[in-house]
Amino acid sequence: MSEPVRPKTGNLRWRDVDVRAYKQEPDVPYRDVTRQVLFDDPALASQLRYFEVAPGGYTTLERHEHAHAVVIQRGRGRVLVGERVFEVREHDLVHVPALAWHQFRAAHDAPLGFLCMVNATRDRPQLPTPDDLARLCTLPAIAAFLGG
Amino acid sequence: MSEPVRPKTGNLRWRDVDVRAYKQEPDVPYRDVTRQVLFDDPALASQLRYFEVAPGGYTTLERHEHAHAVVIQRGRGRVLVGERVFEVREHDLVHVPALAWHQFRAAHDAPLGFLCMVNATRDRPQLPTPDDLARLCTLPAIAAFLGG
Repeated sequence: MSEPVRPKTGNLRWRDVDVRAYKQEPDVPYRDVTRQVLFDDPALASQLRYFEVAPGGYTTLERHEHAHAVVIQRGRGRVLVGERVFEVREHDLVHVPALAWHQFRAAHDAPLGFLCMVNATRDRPQLPTPDDLARLCTLPAIAAFLGG
Repeated sequence: MSEPVRPKTGNLRWRDVDVRAYKQEPDVPYRDVTRQVLFDDPALASQLRYFEVAPGGYTTLERHEHAHAVVIQRGRGRVLVGERVFEVREHDLVHVPALAWHQFRAAHDAPLGFLCMVNATRDRPQLPTPDDLARLCTLPAIAAFLGG
């Protein structure tokens, strides 16, 4: 860790926090997402990250054994959790339980920024197979959501 | 957990989140602090809580083996971490390492609201002894801070 207090330097950027690519892996679909790791301390059992999705962008549709605890920090958009789609805006809370498919989509005219707490030790995300996608898309609300 | 999405219902309050007393113990000094546990899920290794200190209020001066990861969410104030005092405002990041004395104080004319991530399994806070306080107060900046 650096200094005990790291001030906000922009909207939303912080001193001593790098703005990183959202995913390291190639061929993982997403659009216009940045990642900042705010707290990653061996004394903490979890990490706290800040993701920001630009207007019209979206995170990867994925699932995993670990859970997410999310606080929307900026803007608005929609979130898929399991088989339901929710509208979200600043300060709303989102809980993604184990193995729930999830994706965050910014509105077309606003970004979607959110804090995400995850266990420091966690499994790797799984991407949907064509069969998974076909099954999700039998639900009209999800087909519309994934279509943007 | 309740619904996957719990909307903000006030400034800052949430559906299905109780506003609790800050401390359960008697005789622990603090003033005008509320506590809301936003995420407390057995699948998560950490809890995420929201504390709000009213104008002129302060949290308990304490230390413990566990660390805190804090994101200021609302208002402004000052924070003691170890032997240093910092001004903080919305979105600043605060890291409290193991065994650092710490206290959060709202400004006299503004609240101080913050998210705090902690390990779900953690030790109990320690209060300063009279000797600890006397030693801290040999530092003029800390004496002024603790004096309000």
